Amino acid sequence: MASVQDISVSAVINLISALVFLLAFAIARLQPINDRVYFPKWYLKGIRASPRSSGSFVNKFVNLDLRTYIRFLNWMPAALKMPEQELIGHAGLDSAVYIRIYLLGLKIFVPITLLSFAVLVPVNWTSGETLDHIEDLTFSNIDKLSISNIPSGSKRFWAHVVMAYVYTFWTLYILYKEYKKISTMRLDFLASEKRRPDQFTVLVRNVPPDPDESVSKHVEHFFRVNHSDHYLTQQVVYNANKLAKLVEKKKSNHNWLTYYQTKYERDPEKKQKIKTGFWGLCGKSVDAIDYYTTEIEKLTKEEAEEREKVKSEPNAIVSAAFVSFNSRWGAAVCAQTQQSRNSTIWLTEWAPEPRDVYWDNLSIPYIQLSVRRLLMTVALFFLTFFFMIPIGFVQAFASIDGIRKVLPFLKPLIDMDFVKSFVQGFLPGIVLKIFLILLPMILMIMSKIEGFTSLSSLDRRSAAKYHLFVIVNVFFGSIITGAAFEQLDRFLHQSPTEIPKTIGVTLPMKATFFITFIMVDGWAGIAAEILRLVPLIMFHIKNTFLVKTEHDREEAMDPGSLNFSVSEPRLQLYFLLGLVYAVVTPILLPFIIIFFAFSYMVFRHQIINVYDQKYESGASFWPDVNRRILIGLVISHLLLIGLLSTKDASQSTPLLIVLTVLTIWFHKFCKGRFESVFVKFPLQDAVVKDTVERTTEPNFNLKEYLQDAYLHPVLKGVDFEVLKELDDEEKNSLVATKRTSRRSSKTVSNGTSEDQKTVSEIQLVF
Amino acid sequence: MASVQDISVSAVINLISALVFLLAFAIARLQPINDRVYFPKWYLKGIRASPRSSGSFVNKFVNLDLRTYIRFLNWMPAALKMPEQELIGHAGLDSAVYIRIYLLGLKIFVPITLLSFAVLVPVNWTSGETLDHIEDLTFSNIDKLSISNIPSGSKRFWAHVVMAYVYTFWTLYILYKEYKKISTMRLDFLASEKRRPDQFTVLVRNVPPDPDESVSKHVEHFFRVNHSDHYLTQQVVYNANKLAKLVEKKKSNHNWLTYYQTKYERDPEKKQKIKTGFWGLCGKSVDAIDYYTTEIEKLTKEEAEEREKVKSEPNAIVSAAFVSFNSRWGAAVCAQTQQSRNSTIWLTEWAPEPRDVYWDNLSIPYIQLSVRRLLMTVALFFLTFFFMIPIGFVQAFASIDGIRKVLPFLKPLIDMDFVKSFVQGFLPGIVLKIFLILLPMILMIMSKIEGFTSLSSLDRRSAAKYHLFVIVNVFFGSIITGAAFEQLDRFLHQSPTEIPKTIGVTLPMKATFFITFIMVDGWAGIAAEILRLVPLIMFHIKNTFLVKTEHDREEAMDPGSLNFSVSEPRLQLYFLLGLVYAVVTPILLPFIIIFFAFSYMVFRHQIINVYDQKYESGASFWPDVNRRILIGLVISHLLLIGLLSTKDASQSTPLLIVLTVLTIWFHKFCKGRFESVFVKFPLQDAVVKDTVERTTEPNFNLKEYLQDAYLHPVLKGVDFEVLKELDDEEKNSLVATKRTSRRSSKTVSNGTSEDQKTVSEIQLVF
Repeated sequence: MASVQDISVSAVINLISALVFLLAFAIARLQPINDRVYFPKWYLKGIRASPRSSGSFVNKFVNLDLRTYIRFLNWMPAALKMPEQELIGHAGLDSAVYIRIYLLGLKIFVPITLLSFAVLVPVNWTSGETLDHIEDLTFSNIDKLSISNIPSGSKRFWAHVVMAYVYTFWTLYILYKEYKKISTMRLDFLASEKRRPDQFTVLVRNVPPDPDESVSKHVEHFFRVNHSDHYLTQQVVYNANKLAKLVEKKKSNHNWLTYYQTKYERDPEKKQKIKTGFWGLCGKSVDAIDYYTTEIEKLTKEEAEEREKVKSEPNAIVSAAFVSFNSRWGAAVCAQTQQSRNSTIWLTEWAPEPRDVYWDNLSIPYIQLSVRRLLMTVALFFLTFFFMIPIGFVQAFASIDGIRKVLPFLKPLIDMDFVKSFVQGFLPGIVLKIFLILLPMILMIMSKIEGFTSLSSLDRRSAAKYHLFVIVNVFFGSIITGAAFEQLDRFLHQSPTEIPKTIGVTLPMKATFFITFIMVDGWAGIAAEILRLVPLIMFHIKNTFLVKTEHDREEAMDPGSLNFSVSEPRLQLYFLLGLVYAVVTPILLPFIIIFFAFSYMVFRHQIINVYDQKYESGASFWPDVNRRILIGLVISHLLLIGLLSTKDASQSTPLLIVLTVLTIWFHKFCKGRFESVFVKFPLQDAVVKDTVERTTEPNFNLKEYLQDAYLHPVLKGVDFEVLKELDDEEKNSLVATKRTSRRSSKTVSNGTSEDQKTVSEIQLVF
Repeated sequence: MASVQDISVSAVINLISALVFLLAFAIARLQPINDRVYFPKWYLKGIRASPRSSGSFVNKFVNLDLRTYIRFLNWMPAALKMPEQELIGHAGLDSAVYIRIYLLGLKIFVPITLLSFAVLVPVNWTSGETLDHIEDLTFSNIDKLSISNIPSGSKRFWAHVVMAYVYTFWTLYILYKEYKKISTMRLDFLASEKRRPDQFTVLVRNVPPDPDESVSKHVEHFFRVNHSDHYLTQQVVYNANKLAKLVEKKKSNHNWLTYYQTKYERDPEKKQKIKTGFWGLCGKSVDAIDYYTTEIEKLTKEEAEEREKVKSEPNAIVSAAFVSFNSRWGAAVCAQTQQSRNSTIWLTEWAPEPRDVYWDNLSIPYIQLSVRRLLMTVALFFLTFFFMIPIGFVQAFASIDGIRKVLPFLKPLIDMDFVKSFVQGFLPGIVLKIFLILLPMILMIMSKIEGFTSLSSLDRRSAAKYHLFVIVNVFFGSIITGAAFEQLDRFLHQSPTEIPKTIGVTLPMKATFFITFIMVDGWAGIAAEILRLVPLIMFHIKNTFLVKTEHDREEAMDPGSLNFSVSEPRLQLYFLLGLVYAVVTPILLPFIIIFFAFSYMVFRHQIINVYDQKYESGASFWPDVNRRILIGLVISHLLLIGLLSTKDASQSTPLLIVLTVLTIWFHKFCKGRFESVFVKFPLQDAVVKDTVERTTEPNFNLKEYLQDAYLHPVLKGVDFEVLKELDDEEKNSLVATKRTSRRSSKTVSNGTSEDQKTVSEIQLVF
C-alpha cells in the first residue's frame, strides 16, 4: 500500500501534467488561428466574427500581444461569471443542468469531508493500537487515517455507523432539494419557451394498416374522430433512410472532390490519381477529379429518383405519424392517454423536438420491439460479464506466437528485439484500450437496436448500459482481482452475506489505487478535455485541405457536444467512490472535491464557448442521475455492512440495513413526487400557455407553422445544391461576415425555432 | 414415504368426507327452511319468492317429496348449464372471470397430464436400475414413477428438460390466449354496460388547501379552467366516518332490542334484565327493553346532530372530491393525465363505482401515504418470515406450566389427565390455527393502512400479501423443515446456486405430502364450501331471534361473496404445485385436475345461486392472476435446475435458465400488451359510447343523474328510520312478496344502476 509520500508524488506529477494541459490551452486559445476551435459556440450563434478578418498577416495566425499571456488563467473567472439564467438561454437547459451535477457533487461532499476530518479521522488516528506496534517505516500513513486502524470489536465503530447515518441523510436531503430545484427549472424552462412545434405535436406509432385508406388518411380520420375538438394536422413519416444515405455519400464524394481540386490548384503539374477498388487500395487508376465529378453526377441523378420515389410511393410511408393539435392542452392529453383498446397500436407519446428525432426507429412493430429489448438485455449481460473472453482471444492472437503462425512473412520483423518487446508489452493493452474506446459506440448501437425514437433517449439508454459496465468492471473489477465472469462465478457460489464481506474487507486497501485513479482519470483527463487536442488537429487538417469558403470553415469547426452517454456514467463513478470511502478512508474525499470543482469550471467554460448541443431535452436525464447516485449510496451501505461484520461489529448490520431500506424508499418517493414532471406535461401549465398565446396572438396561423416541422430533414426544401450555390456567391470573407451578422439579427428576432432551423440546415450538410 | 396403498386409503377417506358434505348439501338445500341460505342470490334479485308462503305447515319446513332426493347431484349439470354471457349478466364479470381461473387450470394441466403419463412416466418407470434391486416391499411405488427413479448422470434427463420446454411453452400459450380473451371480455363488458356514474367521474385526491376558497369552490374552479369544455359537476367528500359509526351502533342496539322484544313476546312473564357494564358481565342490572329503547333514542339524537355537523362544518370536508364530466371522453382524459406541475397534488384516477369506494382512505396526503407503504412493506416482511416467534411465545404461555404460573387457581382443573392431554396436544395447534384464521384480516388491515381507496384494490393488495405468505410458509415451509426465519437465515448463508439444490433435492420426497394436502384442503375443503355450514347456522339463529318482518329475513340471509383476497392466493398454490411437480412427480397431476374440475363446478353453482358481490371491478384482478402463475412457473424452473444439478445433469442449467428468462420476458410483454386495458379507459371506446348515447338520448339530464351518486352512503336520503317505517307497513309476507316482485320489475327496466342502488340501500342498513 502506498504511503502518503507516494500519493504526494503522484499528486505532484498529475498536477503538473494537468498544469501543462492548462498552459497549452491558455496559449493555444489566444492564437487567432485556433479561434474557431476554442470558441465555436459563438460563431454558431453568429455573435463572433473571425479575428482573422482584420489586422496584419501575422496577426491573423499568431497572437503577439504579450499582455494577454500574463492572465493565462483568466478563462476561469470568466467561465464562472455568466449567471445561470443567462447560461440556460445561451447553452440550453440540458447543459446548464449537466454542470449542476458537478455542483451537486460539491454540495454533497464538501460538508461530508469537513465532518469526516473533524470526527472520523481523529477517531481512526487515535485508535493506533493495532498498527502502532508494527513499527514498520514502510507502513502506510493513510491506513492510520482509515478504518483499518481500528481493532476488531472496538466500540469506536459506532462513530462510523453514526456518520453513515449523517452522510446518508445529508445526501438524501441534498438530492431531494436538487431534484425539486431541477424539476422547477424544467417546468419554468418549458413555460418560458417560445412556441415550438413539439409543444403541439404527438408522435403516433404503430398505426395499424388499413386496406381501404392510406396511412395519412387513416391517421387523420382516427384523430378527427377521437380528438374531434383538438386535432389540427398530421405529418406522415417517410422512409427516407436510403435517400439520407445517398445524400451522405454525395457529401463525402464532394469533400474528396474539393480535396483533389485544392491539391490540383496548388500543384497543377501533378495529376491526381486514385484507385477505384476496395478502400482505394487496388483496382484501376483513374483521374481523381474526373472520377468524383462523374460520381457526384451519378449520385445526384440517383438522389433525385429516390426523392421522387419517396414522395410518390405509398410503401415509402411508414406506420408512424406526427399528429399536431390546435392547443398544447390537446397535445398533452393525446400524449398521455391510451387511444385504442389494443394497447400495442396507436401508441402516442410526446413528440421529441424535430432535431431530436431518430428517424430510423419510428416504424418498429410492438412485438419486434419487445423481442429486440429482450435480446439486447441478454447481450448487455454477456457484454458486461464476459467481454474479457473475446478480448482474451484477440490478445492471444496478437501475441508473438500468434502473429508468427498467421502472418509468417512478418517473422523477420517481429524477431527484432524492439518490435518483440513492443508487441509483448503494449499490444494486449492496446487491444483492451481499443475495445474500451469502441464500447460507447457498441452500447449506442445496442440502444439503437432497442428501438428508441429520439437521440436524447438513445443517449440516456446508452448511459444506463455504460453505468452498469463501469460499476461492474471498473469499480468492482478494481476491488476484486479477476475478470468479471470469474467474479460472477465466485459470487454465484458464495452466500449473499459473504459477498459484501469479501468486497468490504479489501476496500480500505484499494483506497490509494483509487486516489491515483482520480488524479489520472479525473484531474489530468479533464485538463485534456479543455485542450481539445483531437478537434484542434482535425480543424487544421480540414482547414488546409477542404475549406474553400467561409461556409466550409464553419462546417469544419466541429464544436462537439456534451457526450452525456459517456461522461455521465463516468462521473457517477466519482459519486460512488466518494460515498463508499466517506466512512472507510476519508482521505480520499479531498481528491474527489478537487475533481468536482475543477470539472465544474472546465465544463462551464466548454458549454459557454465550445459545445453545441444536438438537441434540447429539457434536462430529462435527471431522474437517471438521481437514481444512480442512490445506487451508489446503497452500494456504500452494503459494503460497509460487509466491512464491519469482518471487524466483529456485525451488531451494526440491522442499523445499516435500515439505511438501505430508507434509501430505496427515498428513491420510490422521489419517483412518485418528481418523475412525472420529466415525462408528462401538466395540463395546468398547458392551459396557461395556451391562454396567454391566444390572447396575445389571436390570429396566428398555427397550421401553417406546423406544416413542415416534422418532415424528414433530407426531404426539406433546403438541400445541398441550393446551399452550395449560395456559398459560391459568398466566397470572400467580408460577405461571409455580413451573412453571419444578418443571420444573427434573424436569430434575435425569430427566436429559438429559427435557430434550430439554422442548426439543422448545418447538420444536414455536414 | 407413503406407498400407493397409503395414498389410495387417504384418497378414499377424503372422497368419502367430500361425499358426505355433498350429500348433506343435497339434502339441506331441498328443505324450504334453508332456501334462503342456498339460493340467496335469487332472493336478492327479486326473482325467487319464498317457497314457505304456500303449501301445508310441514311442507313449509321440510321437503317431503322423495323424488327430489333421488337426483341429489342434479345441481351439478344445472350449475354448468348457464351460458357464460348470461352468467356475466347474472353475477357480474368479476365472478364469471374468477371461475375461469379454475377452467384455466384445467386447460393448462389436462394436456400436461396426458403428456406426462405418455412420456415421463414410462421414462421414469423403465429406468428402474437404481431402485429395483432393493426388493423392499414397503418401498413406495410412487417413487418408481417419479424422477427419483432415474440414476444420476443418466441421458434420460433430457426427456425431462424437453418436457419442461413443452410445458412452459404450452402454459405461456394458454396464458396469452386467456389474457387476450379476458381483456376483450372486460372491454366488451365496459362497452355494453348501461350508463353508470363512474364512467363519467374521476376521483381527485390531495386537493391543495386554499386560504380564500372552500374545497368545493376550489375544485370547481380548477377543473372549470383546466377542463373547460368537459367539466360538469363535482361532489366533495364528507368525513362521515363518525356518523357511520353511530349508525352502525344504533343498528346493533336495534337488533338487541328486537331480540329482547321477541323473547318478551314469547314469555311475557320473565323480565329481561341486562347488566350495563363491560360486555354485559358486570354493572347494575336494568330492564333490557327500556335500556335499549333509551339508548336508541339517545343515538338518534346524536346522529341527527352529527349529520347536521357534517353537512354544515367546513372542516368535515376532506381534501378529495369526485369530479364528473359531461362525457366519458372527458373523464377518461382527466383520469389519465397529470393536472398540476406538482405531481403530489390534484391526483386524478378513474373513480371506483360508488359501492366500491372505501371512504375512510380518501384524504391521506402523499407523503403520509408513502411512509405508510414503507412501514407496511417492512411489517409484511416481518410477518411473513418471523410470525412464528410471537406464536411461539403464546404457545409457550399456553402450555401446562405457563397456565399453572399465571392462573394458579386453575391448577386442580389442569392436573386432570384429560384436560392435561388436551392442553398439551391441541392448544399449540389451536393457537396457530387461530392466527391463520386471523391472518387474512390482519393483511386486510395492513392494506387499509396502506391507503387504497377502493374495496377492489384492497382485496387485490391483500391477495398479494397472502400469496407471499402462502409461497413462503406453506410451499417452501412444507418442503424444508424449520420456521421461515430459520430458512431465511440459512439462505442468507448459502450461495445462490446452493438454494435451489437444497430445495430441489427434497422435492420428490414431498410429493405424497402434497397429494394428501390437495385431498384434504382441496377436495374436502371445497365440498365444505358448498355446504355453507356457518351461514346456515347463523341464518337459523337470526331467523329465530331477530327476524320479525320479511325485510329482516332478507337481511338475515348473508349471501356472502367470493373472498378474492383469500381464495385466489390459495388457489395459486395449486398452480404452483402442478407446475413444479409436472416434471418431477407427474402422479400428482390428476389430483390437481380433480381439484380444478370440482372447484369449477362448486363455484359456478355458488356464484349462480349464492354469492352477492359487494362490488364490480370488471375483472381488474386478472393481471395479478397472470403474474402469479408466471411466478409459479419461474419457481418450477429454478427448482428443476437445482434438482437436476444434484443429479449430475447440471449441463441442462443454461437451457433451463433460457426458459426462466423467456418467462420473465413474457411477463413484461403481457404487461405492455394487455395491462393498460385493466387500468385505463381507451379514448376510442369512450368516443363510441358517448356518440351512441348522444344520438339515442339527446336530452338526458346527466348533471341531475350524477348529482348524488358519490355521496357518502350514510348521508344519502334513504336512511334507517324511513326503511323501518316502510317495513312496518309490510308486515305480512304476501305484501312482501309483492314488494319483491315490484322491485324485480324495476330492476329489469332500470338496469344495473338501479340494481346497485338497491344493493347499497341494503348495505347501508346491514
